[in-house]
Amino acid sequence: MDRRDPDGEIARRALAYRNWGRWGEDDRLGTLNLIDDAGRAAAAALVRTGRAVSLAQSFDMDGPQRGWRRRTNPVHTMLDTGTDAERGLQGFPHGIGGADDVIAMPLQCSTQWDGLGHIFDRGSAWNGRRAGDVVTSDGDLVTGIEHTAAALVGRGVLLDVGRHLGSEPSAGAAAGELADGFAILPEHLDACAAAQGVEIRSGDILLVRTGQYARARREGWGEYAGGPAPGMSLTTAGWLHRHGIAAAATDTWGFEVRPNEFDVPAFQPLHQIAIPNLGLTLGEMWALDELAAACAEAGRWEFLLTAPTLPITGAVGSPVNPIAVL
Amino acid sequence: MDRRDPDGEIARRALAYRNWGRWGEDDRLGTLNLIDDAGRAAAAALVRTGRAVSLAQSFDMDGPQRGWRRRTNPVHTMLDTGTDAERGLQGFPHGIGGADDVIAMPLQCSTQWDGLGHIFDRGSAWNGRRAGDVVTSDGDLVTGIEHTAAALVGRGVLLDVGRHLGSEPSAGAAAGELADGFAILPEHLDACAAAQGVEIRSGDILLVRTGQYARARREGWGEYAGGPAPGMSLTTAGWLHRHGIAAAATDTWGFEVRPNEFDVPAFQPLHQIAIPNLGLTLGEMWALDELAAACAEAGRWEFLLTAPTLPITGAVGSPVNPIAVL
Amino acid sequence: MDRRDPDGEIARRALAYRNWGRWGEDDRLGTLNLIDDAGRAAAAALVRTGRAVSLAQSFDMDGPQRGWRRRTNPVHTMLDTGTDAERGLQGFPHGIGGADDVIAMPLQCSTQWDGLGHIFDRGSAWNGRRAGDVVTSDGDLVTGIEHTAAALVGRGVLLDVGRHLGSEPSAGAAAGELADGFAILPEHLDACAAAQGVEIRSGDILLVRTGQYARARREGWGEYAGGPAPGMSLTTAGWLHRHGIAAAATDTWGFEVRPNEFDVPAFQPLHQIAIPNLGLTLGEMWALDELAAACAEAGRWEFLLTAPTLPITGAVGSPVNPIAVL
Amino acid sequence: MDRRDPDGEIARRALAYRNWGRWGEDDRLGTLNLIDDAGRAAAAALVRTGRAVSLAQSFDMDGPQRGWRRRTNPVHTMLDTGTDAERGLQGFPHGIGGADDVIAMPLQCSTQWDGLGHIFDRGSAWNGRRAGDVVTSDGDLVTGIEHTAAALVGRGVLLDVGRHLGSEPSAGAAAGELADGFAILPEHLDACAAAQGVEIRSGDILLVRTGQYARARREGWGEYAGGPAPGMSLTTAGWLHRHGIAAAATDTWGFEVRPNEFDVPAFQPLHQIAIPNLGLTLGEMWALDELAAACAEAGRWEFLLTAPTLPITGAVGSPVNPIAVL
Repeated sequence: MDRRDPDGEIARRALAYRNWGRWGEDDRLGTLNLIDDAGRAAAAALVRTGRAVSLAQSFDMDGPQRGWRRRTNPVHTMLDTGTDAERGLQGFPHGIGGADDVIAMPLQCSTQWDGLGHIFDRGSAWNGRRAGDVVTSDGDLVTGIEHTAAALVGRGVLLDVGRHLGSEPSAGAAAGELADGFAILPEHLDACAAAQGVEIRSGDILLVRTGQYARARREGWGEYAGGPAPGMSLTTAGWLHRHGIAAAATDTWGFEVRPNEFDVPAFQPLHQIAIPNLGLTLGEMWALDELAAACAEAGRWEFLLTAPTLPITGAVGSPVNPIAVL
Repeated sequence: MDRRDPDGEIARRALAYRNWGRWGEDDRLGTLNLIDDAGRAAAAALVRTGRAVSLAQSFDMDGPQRGWRRRTNPVHTMLDTGTDAERGLQGFPHGIGGADDVIAMPLQCSTQWDGLGHIFDRGSAWNGRRAGDVVTSDGDLVTGIEHTAAALVGRGVLLDVGRHLGSEPSAGAAAGELADGFAILPEHLDACAAAQGVEIRSGDILLVRTGQYARARREGWGEYAGGPAPGMSLTTAGWLHRHGIAAAATDTWGFEVRPNEFDVPAFQPLHQIAIPNLGLTLGEMWALDELAAACAEAGRWEFLLTAPTLPITGAVGSPVNPIAVL
Repeated sequence: MDRRDPDGEIARRALAYRNWGRWGEDDRLGTLNLIDDAGRAAAAALVRTGRAVSLAQSFDMDGPQRGWRRRTNPVHTMLDTGTDAERGLQGFPHGIGGADDVIAMPLQCSTQWDGLGHIFDRGSAWNGRRAGDVVTSDGDLVTGIEHTAAALVGRGVLLDVGRHLGSEPSAGAAAGELADGFAILPEHLDACAAAQGVEIRSGDILLVRTGQYARARREGWGEYAGGPAPGMSLTTAGWLHRHGIAAAATDTWGFEVRPNEFDVPAFQPLHQIAIPNLGLTLGEMWALDELAAACAEAGRWEFLLTAPTLPITGAVGSPVNPIAVL
Repeated sequence: MDRRDPDGEIARRALAYRNWGRWGEDDRLGTLNLIDDAGRAAAAALVRTGRAVSLAQSFDMDGPQRGWRRRTNPVHTMLDTGTDAERGLQGFPHGIGGADDVIAMPLQCSTQWDGLGHIFDRGSAWNGRRAGDVVTSDGDLVTGIEHTAAALVGRGVLLDVGRHLGSEPSAGAAAGELADGFAILPEHLDACAAAQGVEIRSGDILLVRTGQYARARREGWGEYAGGPAPGMSLTTAGWLHRHGIAAAATDTWGFEVRPNEFDVPAFQPLHQIAIPNLGLTLGEMWALDELAAACAEAGRWEFLLTAPTLPITGAVGSPVNPIAVL
């Protein structure tokens, strides 16, 4: 890889792995098309103990946002409270009282899915559409997240790269954690899968644990939202494409390694290939530690994963509470 | 039932069906405790075809809110757009462009769960706590919705009362729909279950379809957010308790029949029993029509249901995209 | 005026009254440049009794918005309450308690100023800039409302056309009110000024009362946000230009008469001339009734007007509480 | 002053300076009653040059909030943009295009007024009302900021204590700035007024410049929102009362000196006396530097001040763009 040429490295991969037209001109789902009913039924059949694990962090003011791109942490306010109800201020009959609430939050602020309208490649959106024909200030008019409402259920596979490699590479990271700046390469993914004895299949929802989320919770977010992090290498684009990954998520802010793997200014080059070219839905800031422990204990790294988007019309992303059932 | 005495009718049932202390003094989950790992594994084993159905309506300005209790429909705005990206205004390197977005919405505005902090009975919250000790302007400090993050996965059962009774009762409703003001009684639930050949079990997540959602979508919401609707009768409180329902949802704004079944002012009396006394999580505005058609076609009314809350710290409710897998 | 040719009627006036370049290539203020220090000093010298009148309606859920263009009424929520403080829940020392609050609102939802970035004429913004060079999803990068922070103080003149003509024209309006659809023509403005004995001068902030606001408050907003209303005729564009009006406001939702004066689809044609071509800041939904009564009582229709924008960086409009001092 | 006894020091002053009942049992304005029409007329007569100065900082994400008490900086988003208009995406006739926008912000996030419902003293609000009878989750039901809509116009007086004392006291502050932690005492106010040759009168809106705002803009906000700052001493409560100050504002986050003047935990003790006991409206984060320079140049420290609240129904505070006219 030529570390001085992000344009070339990105353009070459975009062309090589582009899925435009693969599911028709009107497609709104990209690689989510790789999950079918049979695959979902097979995923349900993976369930053994029935243990359910949530992969969401809590949505509150303790999150990682520091204002970059006007992203705040979720602001939750009450419209009615128990204090008011108990004091008899609400004016309802027969002693009923209530509490209501409101949320204001960027859809990219916490555990989330990036939809297909979230990233563009030189003015093009998923399936080769012009970006301005897809996402205006009215939202994503074509590939809005609402179209994925029933799509994100299937076989989940966890590759715990943090656990697999976490004892070796570099400074500042505890056991089971990759260091900031560590780029996960295709060979790391293959080695981890082999060590775990799990096979990657077309239609899988791939979860990659770096361990950075545990570190951020332990040491404070610092510059987490955009700062240095372990993550997927640009060179995994072909691997994701070849394996028929339907959707992929990590436990970091931005999915891919930060700083990015170039010696000149670069920003999220793997996104630029994955979302508008592959049509790959990406997950970020997933809390994978409890799941990782459960998988290690069970010695199994596959499970039923249900990670439904909130079908906000025209949204380019969605907060999500993914549920793994083992 | 004495239609002039809501206080008495409510108080009697609250006392009769109260689950306070049943799961310990510190309990935060109420009847969600009735779902266990074994039940979840059994629910996963119900999956046959792998067909997934979303039970959420779209979250947008076309929803049913008209401003009552400061509830608006969801307001979705963009922080960045494809139009800007295509025009080259974003300042990112190597041709990457992006779109980001924000949501502001009441947690009770669309397809949702009512959490245990949502309703109080004469100043008391779930498990006998004082309402003001539970929900302040900082949110629900005890039973916040985040505690349910992994809880709402289990066996779902649909009772399609609209289909079962929809041909008979009253005016203004099409076939398969109950009329506004129609109160679903325990015997209706029993007869519907018998007709469908489905057995209700402890730990079930019960879905009751009235058909009103289809009517509202067809004819416009009108004064839907609080207006007349078919729904559960106050007298189903005992039935819900006796059957060990873990959570229950309908396709109407307010779960229970509107106007409520009293000749004097009354407001959501079944909520007053169900939430703070039974500890029952209630779902509202679920879109059940596609699921109903799928169940009718398959001749099966049970399925795996995953309806994860968004774990907003201290929330008294949550928007939800429930996923049924058949 | 050719009622079948909005394009031609607009284009002709845009060309005739265009102020592009008049205050330099870098101008951000348009006709607000017509207010100078001497004019402000003269305006202050108009003060006699010192009576202050607010021209804002209240900002709350009872406003005129019905969801069009995602405009809601203002949603005001509390972060802390007196109920919580009184109950001792806030954790502050020495008995201090507090209440805090939050607002979420469209800047165009209530009494407001339209800034120079609010309207475009065939892709052009004020001073001939390309619309996309001025207002992106980051806001108005050139003529953001913050540049007007100190500009909106000067001589205010009220033309109470409702009072002047309100006894004659048409149906559905009480005395002192113009009927919906009534177009205020230049000759109406001149006659009203003459009847009131007030002279219009360059640099004035012109207030035109139709009386519709009183009617809306009395009878409910109905479809007010965009519905039929009395208002300024397209043909007043030249009058506004010729008199050197610095800014102009009415007591209606949209400043100009609705429906607009064409037999084919048209939308706010006077805006299209006034804002991007004249560079005229427009005010809407101003509450002018108390001021009108005070002016009638005093027999004087000029006053010191202070109507400061809230300097939100990049905003294309601003809520405002205009203060007239007589 | 006993630095170990905040309770006693506060209670003593609260009792001594309490204005409860002074303007009737139903009063909603507190010391704003001290501004009358004659005073406003006299204030208008102070205008000489007509120069207008805005005392607001810009409202944007660069503000001082860091998330404390769920306070964010203002989040401004666009509903429509010039980019979309220029690209012809908006669907309006005859070439008109538009931009609209939305704000979400705590009312206490930037240049603001604290209303009478903002602070309580041992469960009591202004005029002796119980806090829970005044401010619930529905907002301030009694002294909501909307009642002040026309009240905040009058004679403004600037005491530039930063300039007066800024050369002497302590570390970390440039010329014309007070150091963090510096408590402005009554004698400082008197000496500054004498040096400036300005007399304080009943009904004045008092502005006290510390210079900290200039420092924060220069060096970054750091922990400004609640961190160390110069400001008014608790001991100025009597001075404010004795002089009949109608409203008072500073250029700091919290009006009074931080840390507060006690050796034990304390929080904003002057607020606890001023707001609920005196009924004094307080302003914070006012940008006073340009005004200070203008006053120094003119050698006059009095002016017409118009600082209208935004009349948000039930609000306990308001953002404000105060306008001084010299």
